[in-house]
Amino acid sequence: MDISEVIKVKRDGGKLSKEEIEWFVSASTSHEIADYQISAMLMAMFINGLDDEETAQLTIAMRDSGEKPDLSSIPGIKVDKHSTGGVGDKTTLSACPLAAACGAKVAKMSGRGLGFTGGTVDKLSAVPGYVTALSEEEFFDVVRKTGISVVSQTKNIAAADKIFYALRDVTATVDSIPLISASIMSKKLALGSDAILLDVKCGEAAFMNDIDEAGKLARTMTEIGARAGKKVVAMITAMDQPLGKAVGNTLEVKEAIEVLKGNGPEDITELSVSIAGMMIYLAEKAESHEQGKAMAAEALKDGRGLMKLKEMIEGQGGDPAVCDDPDAVMGTAKYSRDVVCKTDGYVNKIHGVTIGLASMNAGAGRKKMDDVIDLRAGIILEKKVGDAVSVGNTLCTVFADDETKLEEACRTAESAFVIEECAPEKTPLILDIVTNGSI
Amino acid sequence: MDISEVIKVKRDGGKLSKEEIEWFVSASTSHEIADYQISAMLMAMFINGLDDEETAQLTIAMRDSGEKPDLSSIPGIKVDKHSTGGVGDKTTLSACPLAAACGAKVAKMSGRGLGFTGGTVDKLSAVPGYVTALSEEEFFDVVRKTGISVVSQTKNIAAADKIFYALRDVTATVDSIPLISASIMSKKLALGSDAILLDVKCGEAAFMNDIDEAGKLARTMTEIGARAGKKVVAMITAMDQPLGKAVGNTLEVKEAIEVLKGNGPEDITELSVSIAGMMIYLAEKAESHEQGKAMAAEALKDGRGLMKLKEMIEGQGGDPAVCDDPDAVMGTAKYSRDVVCKTDGYVNKIHGVTIGLASMNAGAGRKKMDDVIDLRAGIILEKKVGDAVSVGNTLCTVFADDETKLEEACRTAESAFVIEECAPEKTPLILDIVTNGSI
Repeated sequence: MDISEVIKVKRDGGKLSKEEIEWFVSASTSHEIADYQISAMLMAMFINGLDDEETAQLTIAMRDSGEKPDLSSIPGIKVDKHSTGGVGDKTTLSACPLAAACGAKVAKMSGRGLGFTGGTVDKLSAVPGYVTALSEEEFFDVVRKTGISVVSQTKNIAAADKIFYALRDVTATVDSIPLISASIMSKKLALGSDAILLDVKCGEAAFMNDIDEAGKLARTMTEIGARAGKKVVAMITAMDQPLGKAVGNTLEVKEAIEVLKGNGPEDITELSVSIAGMMIYLAEKAESHEQGKAMAAEALKDGRGLMKLKEMIEGQGGDPAVCDDPDAVMGTAKYSRDVVCKTDGYVNKIHGVTIGLASMNAGAGRKKMDDVIDLRAGIILEKKVGDAVSVGNTLCTVFADDETKLEEACRTAESAFVIEECAPEKTPLILDIVTNGSI
Repeated sequence: MDISEVIKVKRDGGKLSKEEIEWFVSASTSHEIADYQISAMLMAMFINGLDDEETAQLTIAMRDSGEKPDLSSIPGIKVDKHSTGGVGDKTTLSACPLAAACGAKVAKMSGRGLGFTGGTVDKLSAVPGYVTALSEEEFFDVVRKTGISVVSQTKNIAAADKIFYALRDVTATVDSIPLISASIMSKKLALGSDAILLDVKCGEAAFMNDIDEAGKLARTMTEIGARAGKKVVAMITAMDQPLGKAVGNTLEVKEAIEVLKGNGPEDITELSVSIAGMMIYLAEKAESHEQGKAMAAEALKDGRGLMKLKEMIEGQGGDPAVCDDPDAVMGTAKYSRDVVCKTDGYVNKIHGVTIGLASMNAGAGRKKMDDVIDLRAGIILEKKVGDAVSVGNTLCTVFADDETKLEEACRTAESAFVIEECAPEKTPLILDIVTNGSI
């Protein structure tokens, strides 16, 4: 095919054929066409859009552009979970063990994080001994034995996505719902689970700021799932403040353990049970989301969720005692300092992006891909949106191994809090659930 | 500036500021931004367009991205001429000497041709001894002495245009009126003449196929001229069949000489007088286009136009005797063959693109930039649109120095003619004249 002719179709607002899309993806991956041709096409796609059929075809071609682990040797229904990302989101650690405890198989490959906070793999590396880089056979073995494993992604998954993303990032073509959907779903589909639970974050601290855009993204991704023959459900959940109270790697592992002990903050506990409930339903271990949630709540209450996390940690070489006494096993940061409230009133907002930045300033996140993370650095929010505060109350505590970083992080964290005279309206945590009709 | 932010403006259909446009052009020229970023921006410009102000600002920034010859040492009003290109267009050789004979100063730098037929510089190199690669001082000297010189473009004119064009050519972003206009006008403005006559070809064998598009291009280019403070006129002229009868380098020089002797084909003679008349008017040697045309016609009739061409050729080292006996001086191709008519009727169409291709097949054009041209190869049309033909009549004669090429060219040339029972409607040669209000 002639790349100019293929670009022309989308440039003029036309619909690309399956063959044209497949050729574009494979020619991009094989470097048969040049970066400047790919970026011109991505811009045409950005401006003129892709319909559901084109988006699904693009996603499937991207899925097939790299390696695809074969999970068929793991018995049972494998359920994956993906979050579009938010500050304080440790639900992989709190929800997936609950789902696994109720019979869902969770074979999860995660990337490292870039930006505000570490990714799940970074969080798990806070557990002494825990190996995230298992071989495929070792990974499968852990899932077969315990029902759950979370490892770092080592395979060349969705090779075309890496090429497209690197170009989109520097050519102002990131914020496109079809392109975002294809990027996320190509990787998730390549990873081979039978069903996928998507947690689409919506709000000030999320990639999608309003419910309409989040709904479109959710609908587009579930539609791709339907066309690829997979069960996909998207939960649209609020991200107007950090999720839970802990931000930072060690602190988040500890909070996930607290959730599984029944002592976690309300919002992250509610979300974990809801996500786990949907994963249980997707794994066909419950008749409905409601029933799944009841099962997850039960597994939380009776400690089977925590036991599952412990089994996984042990299965991957980590110290299981972390689940009993996290501080003793993972340690705490050298320095900590409280950020103190200077007025009376109610917390109306906690800017998640600012808290993320403060946590990164404290050492918990990467600015560049090869930055080393300070695992114990981070923030504990003592007050959340809606809480009444008085002068002298602790708003949050910042942890760091470096005093200069601590100071900078405190200044940033303080600016994240908006205190006003009146209490804010209470808003729901789970905003909507979008299914593709296949479940 | 941040290239992503600048791309975003145009991606979202906004208007770029002068500063953003200037930065984009200079960062492209200095390679501060990457090809894939430039191509993403060009695609955004293609799809979302540029208004007149943006187009003029882009053109002026591109004009300033390379070298700019200073013609101020040449006394008088310098008038440039540009054709958007058509098969058989040799008006630079037939019209410019007429304009120069009536007092316009013509200091013209031309590029080499790529595609169907050679460019003006290729055509002039068919004249033995003619030097197209003069130094700037030699070039200016010829203009000062004779009033006219045509040389090959040696300077790095509109450097950004070269970068943009190379990318547009392979990313399906050529056919954009603002981008075409900026490309043509940036070079013309950089070359420094006081006024510019644009011949915008319109029709089946031209870049612009319909009068509306040609009109938009003409209007956009004259508007750029106005904003850059130059007198610019665009003539929209028909290109539904080759112009004149000769296609090919030596053959076209010969036909231009015939025009200046008063023996040329009707269409090219009419167009040459009209173009020259407008150039004379732009040079303020006539009160109107009509008066300019009358002066040009007079210079044709009394031989001053031919004399001017002769002076230029002599001034640039060429053999002036070519004007007296072209065949003797330039020679003729080794082989020639007539393409004969197989039905009775009227010539309804002569596909210009096909004739151009046939001429290239005969050896007259370049497929790649470093191909060597067979200067004597080409085609003489014996019949033009509207002519009655009978079985056995010669439709055209093909010339080549290679018998295999000759045969292929004859087959192609034959397929260019459409003979039908009825005569076609007669259509005008000059379709419209667009000025920018500055004259």
